[in-house]
Amino acid sequence: MKHFTQFDDKNMAAALIEQALAFKSNPRKYADLGRGKRLGLIFLNPSLRTRVSTQIAASNLGIESIVLNMDKESWALEMQDGALMNKHTVEHIKDAAAVLGSYFDMLAIRAFPSLTNKTEDSDDFILKQFIKYANIPVVSLESAIRHPLQSLADMVTIQENLRNKPRPKVVLTWAPHIKAIPHAVANSFAEWSLGCGYDLTIAHPEGYDLDERFTAGATITHDQDEALRDADFVYVKNWSAFHEYGKIIHVDQPWILTEKKLEKSPEAKVMHCLPVRRNLELSDEILDSPRSLVQQQAHNRIYAAQAVLHRIIS
Amino acid sequence: MKHFTQFDDKNMAAALIEQALAFKSNPRKYADLGRGKRLGLIFLNPSLRTRVSTQIAASNLGIESIVLNMDKESWALEMQDGALMNKHTVEHIKDAAAVLGSYFDMLAIRAFPSLTNKTEDSDDFILKQFIKYANIPVVSLESAIRHPLQSLADMVTIQENLRNKPRPKVVLTWAPHIKAIPHAVANSFAEWSLGCGYDLTIAHPEGYDLDERFTAGATITHDQDEALRDADFVYVKNWSAFHEYGKIIHVDQPWILTEKKLEKSPEAKVMHCLPVRRNLELSDEILDSPRSLVQQQAHNRIYAAQAVLHRIIS
Amino acid sequence: MKHFTQFDDKNMAAALIEQALAFKSNPRKYADLGRGKRLGLIFLNPSLRTRVSTQIAASNLGIESIVLNMDKESWALEMQDGALMNKHTVEHIKDAAAVLGSYFDMLAIRAFPSLTNKTEDSDDFILKQFIKYANIPVVSLESAIRHPLQSLADMVTIQENLRNKPRPKVVLTWAPHIKAIPHAVANSFAEWSLGCGYDLTIAHPEGYDLDERFTAGATITHDQDEALRDADFVYVKNWSAFHEYGKIIHVDQPWILTEKKLEKSPEAKVMHCLPVRRNLELSDEILDSPRSLVQQQAHNRIYAAQAVLHRIIS
Repeated sequence: MKHFTQFDDKNMAAALIEQALAFKSNPRKYADLGRGKRLGLIFLNPSLRTRVSTQIAASNLGIESIVLNMDKESWALEMQDGALMNKHTVEHIKDAAAVLGSYFDMLAIRAFPSLTNKTEDSDDFILKQFIKYANIPVVSLESAIRHPLQSLADMVTIQENLRNKPRPKVVLTWAPHIKAIPHAVANSFAEWSLGCGYDLTIAHPEGYDLDERFTAGATITHDQDEALRDADFVYVKNWSAFHEYGKIIHVDQPWILTEKKLEKSPEAKVMHCLPVRRNLELSDEILDSPRSLVQQQAHNRIYAAQAVLHRIIS
Repeated sequence: MKHFTQFDDKNMAAALIEQALAFKSNPRKYADLGRGKRLGLIFLNPSLRTRVSTQIAASNLGIESIVLNMDKESWALEMQDGALMNKHTVEHIKDAAAVLGSYFDMLAIRAFPSLTNKTEDSDDFILKQFIKYANIPVVSLESAIRHPLQSLADMVTIQENLRNKPRPKVVLTWAPHIKAIPHAVANSFAEWSLGCGYDLTIAHPEGYDLDERFTAGATITHDQDEALRDADFVYVKNWSAFHEYGKIIHVDQPWILTEKKLEKSPEAKVMHCLPVRRNLELSDEILDSPRSLVQQQAHNRIYAAQAVLHRIIS
Repeated sequence: MKHFTQFDDKNMAAALIEQALAFKSNPRKYADLGRGKRLGLIFLNPSLRTRVSTQIAASNLGIESIVLNMDKESWALEMQDGALMNKHTVEHIKDAAAVLGSYFDMLAIRAFPSLTNKTEDSDDFILKQFIKYANIPVVSLESAIRHPLQSLADMVTIQENLRNKPRPKVVLTWAPHIKAIPHAVANSFAEWSLGCGYDLTIAHPEGYDLDERFTAGATITHDQDEALRDADFVYVKNWSAFHEYGKIIHVDQPWILTEKKLEKSPEAKVMHCLPVRRNLELSDEILDSPRSLVQQQAHNRIYAAQAVLHRIIS
């Protein structure tokens, strides 16, 4: 594995899940494997779980990580080839990525979408530019369209809660929010759930269809109640409109997930990538109940990242 | 010791002071004791001495520390249980603290008061919420009402300068400032000085009484000259009004501490937690004279933090 | 060597260049030499290359480095002795530098010029205040008037590309920019090129003369074409006016360096310290051609810093 930016194939996913679970039992098993290697953690956007879990994952493997908050400690990057740089951007990604590539053994990068330039976002332009010019292995810490480390941690968490059901019913249900939120987590969760062979239903209000590149194969409905029936795993997530790109379309029905809506799904476990807007996306009663896997997901972020870094340096 | 957030009892204080002095002589004595342990340093507010001294203290013990500037690198936290999170807060402390608790072996947290919500500040609400949800040992790096690592370093410094006087006269004297400043340092200094059995006098202008929970047992006066007479240690500190919460009340007299005011206290050593506003709180002549212990206090911050971390991991 | 803030003498420069090249071949040769030593990296301004390359250099030597973004994580410093601190500055450099000096074994500091106070900038006031009060070795990570680690990396890069020419023709040519840019890189490059005995020509539009303290001994011209003829190394850099301090003076001619301007210098290598404004200072065609040494310079920053730190701790 050179880069880790998306779901690759079912075998690779299974191997990563297995490795993550192995690290969860024994985090320091390969504590010296990464000795002498350096990982650059590049943040173009804020982060809590991703930042800390990746640093810990690296440390568990003996990899030295150096954090660069490029949005704050450094300067604005120009992304367009051939640009005349006489405006606010200070350095071209060509130059910055190449330098970082010469300083580190691998890079991990967080780069959110603009939510205004659909073509560039859909093409994962910033991540691709980094990969193109850095010339070393790159791990996505969430890009414009995917959040693969989150999804790997989610798959690890589902695996831990499968109860001998090889093809669980997994529901991705849209939730309300007050801001325009990226599609990355939803896209990746669909991509990985389908890739792992799960029975995926996506429920969302009209106008909130996701990019079909990620959802082809899923059952898609606007009827949340129908979707939730007999669910094994319910993933709650807001996203902004994709077709009317980055817009927030008014929704009449209450799409917040509550305990009442899960009456017909007594076994359903509830997932969310965090941060969660309590009582807007998800009710307190669910988040604070045994249904909730959100803390388990967050904790598994460490081992997901560790499995990926382990594979890259192996 | 599970958490370190306040003065506990005299024996504990004496043991920590002794341990801090032992580390000052031999910082690397237990250089491997913390191997494999991780400390999360969480800053909701800026910091220089606290940030660096705690990192060094952890490193001296072999503890890995990871810094998270939550005010800048992460997002605004919701503190209220049951809140409908449809405003600017992005993550509930419940969720964030629980995640951090699952990532680290111990946390150290800086959280200033609002200076607007007296009830919450007085109850040390943010620190308590962190402790409640993190479920691992927590060290206060200054909370709404206390700064115990500063006070421990102050007690170490007093100990080093006692000159065989078991019950020195210690004076906490209010100083002018242009901003509304928290009460944490003043409260903690009173709490620890009294707890260590020192003869504490607090001098401040009318209207600047501190919370009696911290000052009961001290001599309190509005007469700075009287307070300073025969002082062994003079701690200079501004704080905003407590009863008229967070207000700056106009003061007619010049409360800046100058050499002239110390004429009748030839042996008095002068202390300040830094950062100090020179020539507003304290004159240059004092700060740059042999009376000043401010650098010694700052240096002792390392060993105070190291003694606390040592006790937590022992 | 106690401090590293400027060109010292030719022998010292030669020794540092040689050591840097040795580390480039074998970065971990002295991987334990700095064990137990701590370097404080203090940033009053943003940084990418300097920040990361210095951390890596320290790590290669076993030195522990702790980063403090004083512009963001800490507070505004007062620089004037005797100041009445009743305005926006929160801590005096006297106190902050002394504390940092007591926490670390050595400091590295980035402090840009104001570009408004010519006297203070020209005197390198902030750097000198740090050195005065920190009382431990200080490495400049770019000061108001010099960027010696950049220049050392530049000299290493020239050395690597000398092709048996002991006294190459080196041209420092002014480039357009939209912002008022400090003189530090230009000053230092002139200082080191002349100090190393190179044949230095400086080309710039009228009004852009640099401080003669750095340029005495160079050929100075307003004719860029003439300057570039038969050049071996062409260093492209913008700077604001020095005599009309910090001003941007309108320039009629196109001073951007293009391939066409180098027609008569087929062997010329092109240098820039980065970040570079593409197609404003330098054309894409040059930056992406074999002429360009900019990535090599950036990479050599690691070994330049490592050579300096090595000498300080040896």
